[in-house]
Amino acid sequence: MKNYANSSLKELAACIARREVSVEAVARAGIARIEELEPAVHAWQHFDPELVIKQARLLETQAHSGLLYGLPIAVKDLMDTADMPTTYGSPIYENHRPLVDAACVAASRSAGAVIMGKTVTTEFATFRPGATRNPRAVADHTPGGSSSGSAAAVACGMVPAAFATQTAGSIIRPAAYCGVVGYKPTYGTLSLAGIKSLSPSLDTVGVLTRSVGDAAFFIGALARLPLSEGLNADAAPSRLRIGICRTPHWERAGEGARAVLEQAARLLEQAGAIISDVDLPAPCAGLTDAQIRIMGYEAAAAFAPEARTHPEGFSDAFAVLLEAGKAIDGTSYVAAQALAVASRQMVTGVFDKVDILLSPSTEGEAPAGLSITGDPIFNRMWSLLGNPCVHVPLGNGPGGMPLGVTLTGPRWGDARVLSAANLLERVFASNN
Amino acid sequence: MKNYANSSLKELAACIARREVSVEAVARAGIARIEELEPAVHAWQHFDPELVIKQARLLETQAHSGLLYGLPIAVKDLMDTADMPTTYGSPIYENHRPLVDAACVAASRSAGAVIMGKTVTTEFATFRPGATRNPRAVADHTPGGSSSGSAAAVACGMVPAAFATQTAGSIIRPAAYCGVVGYKPTYGTLSLAGIKSLSPSLDTVGVLTRSVGDAAFFIGALARLPLSEGLNADAAPSRLRIGICRTPHWERAGEGARAVLEQAARLLEQAGAIISDVDLPAPCAGLTDAQIRIMGYEAAAAFAPEARTHPEGFSDAFAVLLEAGKAIDGTSYVAAQALAVASRQMVTGVFDKVDILLSPSTEGEAPAGLSITGDPIFNRMWSLLGNPCVHVPLGNGPGGMPLGVTLTGPRWGDARVLSAANLLERVFASNN
Repeated sequence: MKNYANSSLKELAACIARREVSVEAVARAGIARIEELEPAVHAWQHFDPELVIKQARLLETQAHSGLLYGLPIAVKDLMDTADMPTTYGSPIYENHRPLVDAACVAASRSAGAVIMGKTVTTEFATFRPGATRNPRAVADHTPGGSSSGSAAAVACGMVPAAFATQTAGSIIRPAAYCGVVGYKPTYGTLSLAGIKSLSPSLDTVGVLTRSVGDAAFFIGALARLPLSEGLNADAAPSRLRIGICRTPHWERAGEGARAVLEQAARLLEQAGAIISDVDLPAPCAGLTDAQIRIMGYEAAAAFAPEARTHPEGFSDAFAVLLEAGKAIDGTSYVAAQALAVASRQMVTGVFDKVDILLSPSTEGEAPAGLSITGDPIFNRMWSLLGNPCVHVPLGNGPGGMPLGVTLTGPRWGDARVLSAANLLERVFASNN
Repeated sequence: MKNYANSSLKELAACIARREVSVEAVARAGIARIEELEPAVHAWQHFDPELVIKQARLLETQAHSGLLYGLPIAVKDLMDTADMPTTYGSPIYENHRPLVDAACVAASRSAGAVIMGKTVTTEFATFRPGATRNPRAVADHTPGGSSSGSAAAVACGMVPAAFATQTAGSIIRPAAYCGVVGYKPTYGTLSLAGIKSLSPSLDTVGVLTRSVGDAAFFIGALARLPLSEGLNADAAPSRLRIGICRTPHWERAGEGARAVLEQAARLLEQAGAIISDVDLPAPCAGLTDAQIRIMGYEAAAAFAPEARTHPEGFSDAFAVLLEAGKAIDGTSYVAAQALAVASRQMVTGVFDKVDILLSPSTEGEAPAGLSITGDPIFNRMWSLLGNPCVHVPLGNGPGGMPLGVTLTGPRWGDARVLSAANLLERVFASNN
């Protein structure tokens, strides 16, 4: 069989549609790759090759085919699957088998995707690390979290696309640490039905892929949005206005993160973009604290049921997070939400002056060891604002691990931010 | 036992705390009322007196007590309960028993509430009527939907408070038809975790009660918000600015609805408020259509799992709603969301000029018969905007059935709208 490992999702789907390769052969290649690497990577919470083959064969008996027909994908174990266990990263749900799939899982199945298995999530999508290793590292490094398994699986070629979710920084951070593309769509784009709630004002479904085009193709197919159509147009991007937004946390960015931000700006300038510095309006400095308060308050509410009946199943760190959340009173929560409302309005104004904001994705490369998943300091505010973000990997930093940047567009301006990310990806590739 | 049927929640909680009456005695009084009236009203999907008594006795063994200690409440059967079946109003979930409670149910239990049972919801909180009758009617009239059982149960004194949810008009409309108070808090106030998703951009948890004070007390306790503290202050409301907002659908308001809106304005003016007419900014005229599109698109996504595996369990009407939703493409959905974003910003500006908006709750009194649940035409836009709304009942209309009005405040201005609703309620009572 031809090696499809470097094909885009769109190309692979076209090859399958032309019957150059069967759905089962593609699935078997994925299984082989997983079986080869999984003992070192630990990306999967649940992986059952027989069930994968069964799905592939069933798809081949079906006359119709969707946009994702035959494409192998991974599902974060925060999302319900009726035919596979769903643990949410917690021993409380060790033997849990949901009645129906999550909405996004059902949508991908209806579009023809093959679910390769469930990828490791940190406990309830928060901070207790799972077993996953960063496949880009020689010695142990965190893959980031909470979409740890999804990022690792894509990074080492086990699957071309993996569902992820972000509440603080759980799409962008693991994408950055593992050197893959992370796309957090505008808040609300894909349904949260059947995904364990952490903080509903923030929880966002997205995807990890090897290229911007794949991310646009995948989410576009599920949301019935024309996200990938304009990406490869060679229209001169000479009028693209890029605002460098160092965020209120710039002092937290290490040398590597600072250097890659400058590199991204130079690459985009080289491609014809107009670069300027953008300071967000002053009240936005409070967004990160507001995100922390909202996430704590809402997590305490969302996990009130388990706190009543299974508190012994929480890790100490998660119990502390919930206690902190319970200590936040409604007035403080409302003030944080009011700041978010006001800031969204102000940031809408910022996008009158620039098309795209360019920011750090992380403080730096993936931390060594497996005891922490890194800090979402550069992601929290975008999660609260709800704007679409794309992490574009731009090679390795001084420590030999991946680095990249976050491009942010206006809310519901997903096509725009994906186009800019695609441009940056192309310019980087042609320079390397 | 003293009759506590007319006590406020706060008074009843105080009586229980002082041990004037036991938790079990209050629960038994509720059980007796339910057993007397249920054969005619059909408010309950699940009602198990033994389980109620068991909860009451368990609470009495506990040293600590929360703000809702001993208060009997009803839970809409759209909300998960680990100790009772949860059908979501659909035969697909006929034998469903969730692993854990919904977040709001767990919060009410932790605050000491006694769950009297599960109230009837229309199918998945949409439009197929359940078995519930409107207890205010002699001949059959709809109680409204989707929180049909909750509204009926409160209206005939089975419980003093019942959880409800609103996506289009499912709190305000049944409140109006049954003549009770309906309070839809600001979008996002109470957690949606463990409540069957219909349209997550719109789904809102609220409550139905006999008085504004009870609604404020109940939601305030769960959200840790000071909503009821200022309600009964006798501070002169002379500077309260009320804007009469007839909405873009005024031609749909019947004579009764028009008359009660004028009556409400006169009562508030009599209490010292300054009354003016408010036209919403022109783009807001599109909000109702936008709400319909968003609800359809998101419902189609949320029910993709059941559509794959249990389509035979859908009613024809629900299947039509989902098909219509699937036909809405992402671009049209995004345009509706963008209109909502812009409109929220404009409506924030309206609240610089007035404190409260006064609008119709329904086209008129509850329609006769049980085949439809009425139209949420006057509620959809507020659900999409996310502003807090309170329905205040103001007696009966020309047809002998209840009528009232909706008061709307700025987002996160729940205390303000509850104060105004409390004022209207008091002025009405002192005039009747």
